[in-house]
Amino acid sequence: MTSHAAALGELEGLAVLKGHGTGNDFVLVPDADGAHPLTPAQVRALADRRFGLGADGVLRVARTKDSPEVADQAADAEWFMDYRNGDGTTAEMCGNGARVFARYLVDSGLESGTSFSIATRGGARAVRIEGDGDVTIDMGVATGPLLRAMPVVSVGPESWNATAVNVPNPHAVVFLEEPDDLDALDLTQPPQAGPPAMFPDGVNVEFVVRVGAPDERHVRMRVHERGVGETLSCGTGACAVMVAAAGRDQAPAEVAYTVDVPGGTVVVTRRADEHIELRGPAEIVAIATITSAP
Amino acid sequence: MTSHAAALGELEGLAVLKGHGTGNDFVLVPDADGAHPLTPAQVRALADRRFGLGADGVLRVARTKDSPEVADQAADAEWFMDYRNGDGTTAEMCGNGARVFARYLVDSGLESGTSFSIATRGGARAVRIEGDGDVTIDMGVATGPLLRAMPVVSVGPESWNATAVNVPNPHAVVFLEEPDDLDALDLTQPPQAGPPAMFPDGVNVEFVVRVGAPDERHVRMRVHERGVGETLSCGTGACAVMVAAAGRDQAPAEVAYTVDVPGGTVVVTRRADEHIELRGPAEIVAIATITSAP
Repeated sequence: MTSHAAALGELEGLAVLKGHGTGNDFVLVPDADGAHPLTPAQVRALADRRFGLGADGVLRVARTKDSPEVADQAADAEWFMDYRNGDGTTAEMCGNGARVFARYLVDSGLESGTSFSIATRGGARAVRIEGDGDVTIDMGVATGPLLRAMPVVSVGPESWNATAVNVPNPHAVVFLEEPDDLDALDLTQPPQAGPPAMFPDGVNVEFVVRVGAPDERHVRMRVHERGVGETLSCGTGACAVMVAAAGRDQAPAEVAYTVDVPGGTVVVTRRADEHIELRGPAEIVAIATITSAP
Repeated sequence: MTSHAAALGELEGLAVLKGHGTGNDFVLVPDADGAHPLTPAQVRALADRRFGLGADGVLRVARTKDSPEVADQAADAEWFMDYRNGDGTTAEMCGNGARVFARYLVDSGLESGTSFSIATRGGARAVRIEGDGDVTIDMGVATGPLLRAMPVVSVGPESWNATAVNVPNPHAVVFLEEPDDLDALDLTQPPQAGPPAMFPDGVNVEFVVRVGAPDERHVRMRVHERGVGETLSCGTGACAVMVAAAGRDQAPAEVAYTVDVPGGTVVVTRRADEHIELRGPAEIVAIATITSAP
């Protein structure tokens, strides 16, 4: 446990923002000049909830053409979402983060249209600003349900069959019959999921109940993210739940589900070309300047 | 679970700061004009770690003379620390909060000296800015150890005799012999403390080990705060630990202890007049403006 003071001192005067998408929150670091590449220690300090500003992750706003790792996307996307986990590591993609990132680009005037692409380590992604302020991101094509084996998920003494979906990170989706059973689940410990060979790198686990009649296409979920714990929202998790629910409901190829997560509501659509779109609110909450002397 | 968006919308444009003392963190709301009395919903929105800015509590900076509840302290203290818990309720006093509050007053120029008083719901409190930037606050007189009964604290199957101290909120202090035992304690559940009649309103529980020889006056602690859980730091807890350790060590009336908390290190001094002083770092991390459109 350190105070992170040295890392924050290096960022003295840095202008940042805080925002969230359905309770998945981020510190945004505008860095058009590439002056703040952000060390892992700086990311951890910014994301620390008590010694820093606090967030699940950090979104550096960088120019695609000046970022070697994504420069090949420069023709499609002017801005690169340099996403970092709160522990300082990088990740390819973050659905809720991408929505907050797009909200910032539009609000700040860095993008002027309502449809554009952003560069990510997982490739360029199309985003769309909806008339009501929601932000929609193309999450790509999900694979699954995988049919070769039926995964089993356990919480304490209870076990359920699950559906495996890759978005492209691995998910195991469990359907419960009773809303009370969803509320009562203890997710303070990681659920067990197997067979082990199916999830060599761990797995995100979603528990789902239907809301209303099957043809209402409306579900409610909780999620345990691998290496993190239960969270208020998980973008890829909502997409995995949609794919699993559509399979269970024998829904048409082109279909949309409303997905209630603990932090709000998103809409997940599967287009005719099989791409999954994640739509939901994205809000900037504060503009801030890192300082050690106001 | 709500997004707190409406409450934050009411605060659009509000300038705030974020700071911490040994990891106990606060949103400060400068309000010299009394324009932002802060509703409980607004406090909860500011303090929410994912939908808001995030903090353990909120410190409104108000003029003492304009605040009826503390106006009788106006001769002693120009500024009133209007402290709110993160759940929107008020509290009389917060030792770490007072240190961060004083740091802000000096850094912003609202106080120009190195010694002054601040008004609190628990009465005017003297603060001192030390040469190294630490902030010292007079926490008043502790009562105890109470000798009429010996409290007992339990965590799971283990039980220990404890020392009761009021600062003036109630604490039960347990001394452990082995540092490993302190590190191994599971404080994810509240410790049990009794007899029940001794703690009708609950109790904060500290576990302590000595660091070095007894005459080094140095201890390390962990704390479970009633109604909150384990925290990185608790100002009154550190004071309670010092009083209990001094009693155990048969220390002189005027004595100082170094107290390591999970979030850093503080020094607790008992003066000849029995007042307890809490000294430690207090840092402002960011200046921020609440916004829904940057």
